[in-house]
Amino acid sequence: MIAPPIRIDDPSDPRIAGFVSIKERDLTGRQGRFIAEGTVVLRLLAAAHRSSRGIVAEAILLLENRVAGLRELLAEFPEDVPVYAADARVFDAIAGFNMHRGVLAIGRPDRVPSRDALLASLPASSLVLAACGISNHDNMGSLFRNAAAFGVDAALMDQSSCDPMYRKAIRVSVGSVLVLPFAREGTAAELIDQLNAAGFSIWGLSPRGETDIADIPPAPRTALLVGTEGEGLSPAILSAVRTARIRQRPGLDSLNVAMAAGIALHQVARVNGRI
Amino acid sequence: MIAPPIRIDDPSDPRIAGFVSIKERDLTGRQGRFIAEGTVVLRLLAAAHRSSRGIVAEAILLLENRVAGLRELLAEFPEDVPVYAADARVFDAIAGFNMHRGVLAIGRPDRVPSRDALLASLPASSLVLAACGISNHDNMGSLFRNAAAFGVDAALMDQSSCDPMYRKAIRVSVGSVLVLPFAREGTAAELIDQLNAAGFSIWGLSPRGETDIADIPPAPRTALLVGTEGEGLSPAILSAVRTARIRQRPGLDSLNVAMAAGIALHQVARVNGRI
Repeated sequence: MIAPPIRIDDPSDPRIAGFVSIKERDLTGRQGRFIAEGTVVLRLLAAAHRSSRGIVAEAILLLENRVAGLRELLAEFPEDVPVYAADARVFDAIAGFNMHRGVLAIGRPDRVPSRDALLASLPASSLVLAACGISNHDNMGSLFRNAAAFGVDAALMDQSSCDPMYRKAIRVSVGSVLVLPFAREGTAAELIDQLNAAGFSIWGLSPRGETDIADIPPAPRTALLVGTEGEGLSPAILSAVRTARIRQRPGLDSLNVAMAAGIALHQVARVNGRI
Repeated sequence: MIAPPIRIDDPSDPRIAGFVSIKERDLTGRQGRFIAEGTVVLRLLAAAHRSSRGIVAEAILLLENRVAGLRELLAEFPEDVPVYAADARVFDAIAGFNMHRGVLAIGRPDRVPSRDALLASLPASSLVLAACGISNHDNMGSLFRNAAAFGVDAALMDQSSCDPMYRKAIRVSVGSVLVLPFAREGTAAELIDQLNAAGFSIWGLSPRGETDIADIPPAPRTALLVGTEGEGLSPAILSAVRTARIRQRPGLDSLNVAMAAGIALHQVARVNGRI
């Protein structure tokens, strides 16, 4: 984009309708759109838009005093992505709350790969994060952030997991949701079957896992599997895969799921020479 | 406690004044008190109360339908800690919001050790988490949760870090704040001087650290030092200590501070045989 931003003076201007009350929108339905917040996420949205990932940026809304500092980043978007700017009063009236960052964008997934297609696209040597029953958007975002940091090729969730495209998950992921390929479909059992069929060594993470994560051997294809907050992976799932544990002091609550995944992914990524 | 709980029917009952509007209380001043939420945290409060840690439980407020299930846990508190119970309407009117868990307690630190005293009390072989400029209560709570999981003996913060005794920090720590000794005082430079004087090998965590965390050698006394969200440790601090990094994919935002600390503590705790 080279043209100056389009100035918005009326919070009910139909051109910025997609940005109205974004908090409520998350709850009542996003009509296939997602909201990106903040400079770092905007940068990853630009990268995703330019890639073949199937992520499309639709519009950008900035607090007017942010425009000058973002010129270079805005230039990374095609000219047909409109950029709107508003003063603080109008901006907050649009967003529905005090948005300190003053950087919002709307995007949509243009095509979402099926898990079949995603698995078929993975290289011979790959690392997958698989997650079942993740119900908290903070944890989902944090899982993606860790997965991206440690070179995971794809994140695969069962259908009972929450949507990584929610505003808060994207924000906590620092935009990783927009660049790390993922699929969310089917049951945990189907996910495990497919990973097995694709030649993955599957390691279920559990406080009662048999193998210390430091002893997970390298493998061309490794999938780390984590379960729902609180309960973790079900006994049925744990009996269907190899299990690994993170050593910790006894008598305490188990680690947060995203923390546990981060520690295990760091270990597995090292052992497989991915970081 | 053996007596049945004291029933509260009036949200303005002076006996439960300490539980009124606990969200606002966090912001406007807690008068040296802290709020514990949920069963797991209540259990750690009981343990802390019985220990010599200097944590005192003052009162417990339960949703009436939680009382029966908590009898054993309530028996772990001395008889002079009053237990109140209220129905959902009264409970929510007291707390000021919908408290799904229905388990609240008020406590206070009876005596807070100085950093001097805390350092002097540490065993010859010890592991310390040091933190400077942590501004987010979620991160603070998460740092404590990880520190407890990996056998840290004490958490030492500079005065610019936020208070671990805030409600949200205690909740995210799953009560670890109540059982892990900590001190929060002075500047980062003073903290480093004291750790050096106490014979600690200090490792500052930074994306540009010199040593891979996997190569941090075992030592009788190790301190892992982490810095503020976003900026991390300042160049002045990093030049005063040895520095370590967590390998990750390039080009991404660095890991969340609590995540980075968790991964590094896991590694250091292993190497020193603490887990």
